[in-house]
Amino acid sequence: MRENHRSLTWETRYARRAASVSSSAIRELLKVVQTPGMLSLAGGMPPPELFPIQAMQAACQHVLSERGREAMQYGITEGYAPLRQFVVEWMSRSGLQLDESNVLITSGGMQGLDLVGRLLINPGDSITVESPTFLGALQTFTINQAQFLPVPTDEEGILPVHLEAALQKRPALVYLIPTFQNPTGITLSARRRREIVELADRYQTPIIEDDPYSHLRVEGEEVSPLIRLDAEMRGSTGGGLLGNVIYVGTFSKILGPGLRVGWLVGPAMVIRQLTILKQGVDVHTGVLAQMIVHQVTQDDFLVGHVERLRTALRLRRDAMLDALERHFPPGVQWTRPEGGLFLWVTLPPEMDATELLAEAIESKVAFVPGRPFYADESGQHTLRLSFSYPTPEQIEIAIERLGKILARRLR
Amino acid sequence: MRENHRSLTWETRYARRAASVSSSAIRELLKVVQTPGMLSLAGGMPPPELFPIQAMQAACQHVLSERGREAMQYGITEGYAPLRQFVVEWMSRSGLQLDESNVLITSGGMQGLDLVGRLLINPGDSITVESPTFLGALQTFTINQAQFLPVPTDEEGILPVHLEAALQKRPALVYLIPTFQNPTGITLSARRRREIVELADRYQTPIIEDDPYSHLRVEGEEVSPLIRLDAEMRGSTGGGLLGNVIYVGTFSKILGPGLRVGWLVGPAMVIRQLTILKQGVDVHTGVLAQMIVHQVTQDDFLVGHVERLRTALRLRRDAMLDALERHFPPGVQWTRPEGGLFLWVTLPPEMDATELLAEAIESKVAFVPGRPFYADESGQHTLRLSFSYPTPEQIEIAIERLGKILARRLR
Repeated sequence: MRENHRSLTWETRYARRAASVSSSAIRELLKVVQTPGMLSLAGGMPPPELFPIQAMQAACQHVLSERGREAMQYGITEGYAPLRQFVVEWMSRSGLQLDESNVLITSGGMQGLDLVGRLLINPGDSITVESPTFLGALQTFTINQAQFLPVPTDEEGILPVHLEAALQKRPALVYLIPTFQNPTGITLSARRRREIVELADRYQTPIIEDDPYSHLRVEGEEVSPLIRLDAEMRGSTGGGLLGNVIYVGTFSKILGPGLRVGWLVGPAMVIRQLTILKQGVDVHTGVLAQMIVHQVTQDDFLVGHVERLRTALRLRRDAMLDALERHFPPGVQWTRPEGGLFLWVTLPPEMDATELLAEAIESKVAFVPGRPFYADESGQHTLRLSFSYPTPEQIEIAIERLGKILARRLR
Repeated sequence: MRENHRSLTWETRYARRAASVSSSAIRELLKVVQTPGMLSLAGGMPPPELFPIQAMQAACQHVLSERGREAMQYGITEGYAPLRQFVVEWMSRSGLQLDESNVLITSGGMQGLDLVGRLLINPGDSITVESPTFLGALQTFTINQAQFLPVPTDEEGILPVHLEAALQKRPALVYLIPTFQNPTGITLSARRRREIVELADRYQTPIIEDDPYSHLRVEGEEVSPLIRLDAEMRGSTGGGLLGNVIYVGTFSKILGPGLRVGWLVGPAMVIRQLTILKQGVDVHTGVLAQMIVHQVTQDDFLVGHVERLRTALRLRRDAMLDALERHFPPGVQWTRPEGGLFLWVTLPPEMDATELLAEAIESKVAFVPGRPFYADESGQHTLRLSFSYPTPEQIEIAIERLGKILARRLR
């Protein structure tokens, strides 16, 4: 009786949020993936052999010896000032002239998305997303009670004509991963970038540019981030004059996701509002983590480290493309990303990737089925393969096993 | 023209949230406080001389040497399992029998409040708070679009008869800091604790028990946390049977706030929902920070460290009480906390603490005026003094200076 009474209380409370709180399929899957012997093409995890452990140790010792009290004490919400300064320098490599007032340090890129969502989305607002898109972002924006206007993509990225149709419905924002998109690995073409920046300006709709991967290019030429194109369009490349784009950056893929340090770039007035929000959300990102990240980036370490990451990822991407060519049966298609962590497989329409996954896990291979990346839950015949975590040898074995299962199913 | 057009876009977006996003007076003040020579009785900052820097260095080296790849990689949202286990052990010191399913590691105590707010508060809901209460919590719950039902307090804490009147208005939750309350330093009496737990049960209203300070007791006897009394009332002291209280814990005041590591304790089903929310908010709390905190707590280090903190805080509290007695003029009253970081000063009703602060800052003394701690913005003749950050010698000087200003103003 007592128990019923209690569980009623909580269930009543939960009913309020039940619709907006559902677990991420990929995170739940990651738990299964950590069983011994599993070859994981699932998570978007950086190559663990390349984590700069020694540099981190040296940085940690330096920070605690030289400025230990500062590292352990409350910091300011905006973030550790030298790290914000580093972000200004780092972004200048993409041709952006910022100052610190354009930068807010966040607890990873995901917090960046959540803060922006909390600032810009009112319950029931629609937002425009690529179809498919990062399922974690769908989860975050769902918590912020957004509805989705998914826009189709092709091998050059989101389709401008469809984007314009979506913009006419007055969404609260457009969420894009223009470079080495998650999950498809596709990069939005330079031509479309300009078109999209102009469209968003015309419809006065902010763009959220999520960019965790652009430094992980393994071939081809760099493409300007949307935030730079937007600034150029209005005759400004920085400072308070930045326009219509909020840029979400992170150290997760270029140093390590376990640190949970990322950043937001935007107009100073927007950064100010996001800072006030963050103050009430987690006060500030961990000072020790920020100071270690700052220390480890010194003396151009990060430039060299990213170069090593690119070399490793090039080998892995090539190993996967090569193995797919040899082991996957006709009728299955995949993207050929120029960088990042992922590629995207399209099965014949009658196949179901979730059923395939069940069989793959029996063969000790894991991937993420495509469906959770679609706001409209279509795409049951698609899947995402990550080439960043396993070694080239493991990739060969995993793709061979998947190929055998596919060939059997397609027979 | 172009500029007007842009700023219009952003202002339109902000108008939506403007009412719910306002900066924290105390955080803004902290910026002024960091000027050289300022004697700060303002922030709730632990004594910096006592940060266990060497133990942190050893822990950091150990973690990165032994489990560096794990520290740098994605972790699970629930938190680093050994740290959750430590929290279970740590809470057992307060007589609670938990298991890991009752614990979620958070990015500091503030994130705990925000997650609970996001789960339980719908826009426009009322919540019940002590008057005065922690201004950071007012800020967090304001972002979650709560209205406030402030309940008066006396020297034994919140007044049950007034609490019941508030509960009759069906608030979404009751937010309490029962031990060494921020800002007053007052501890809710054992008698009232039982009464309040029963009241909240009768009205089926969850209690959020924020408890950053209870381990910092410098005299008197420990009082059971509400979560334990609630569990006892329903004949259970742990596991999935925990009832109506969500407990917010943090390492900020017993190790260092710069780490941003805290925890939530509650019924397993509530923790599960909060975990799903956190997944979309920041994926997980930094793994490196969690592993360092876990490592440094080993071999009963934290027990000894907390003992050292208590000794230091006892000296500082005594220095402040002694100085107040000698330097403050008649007509000014203050609380005598048995622990924590703060005490609370009530000036004669005609005085304004904000005006006093302006004069105090000229004399290089800072404190926090009481008004922002009141949901109804009353209390302009109150102020909070922190005795944790300055040395006893600095406390003596600061209180003497404040006393002189007060004496002059009261003349």
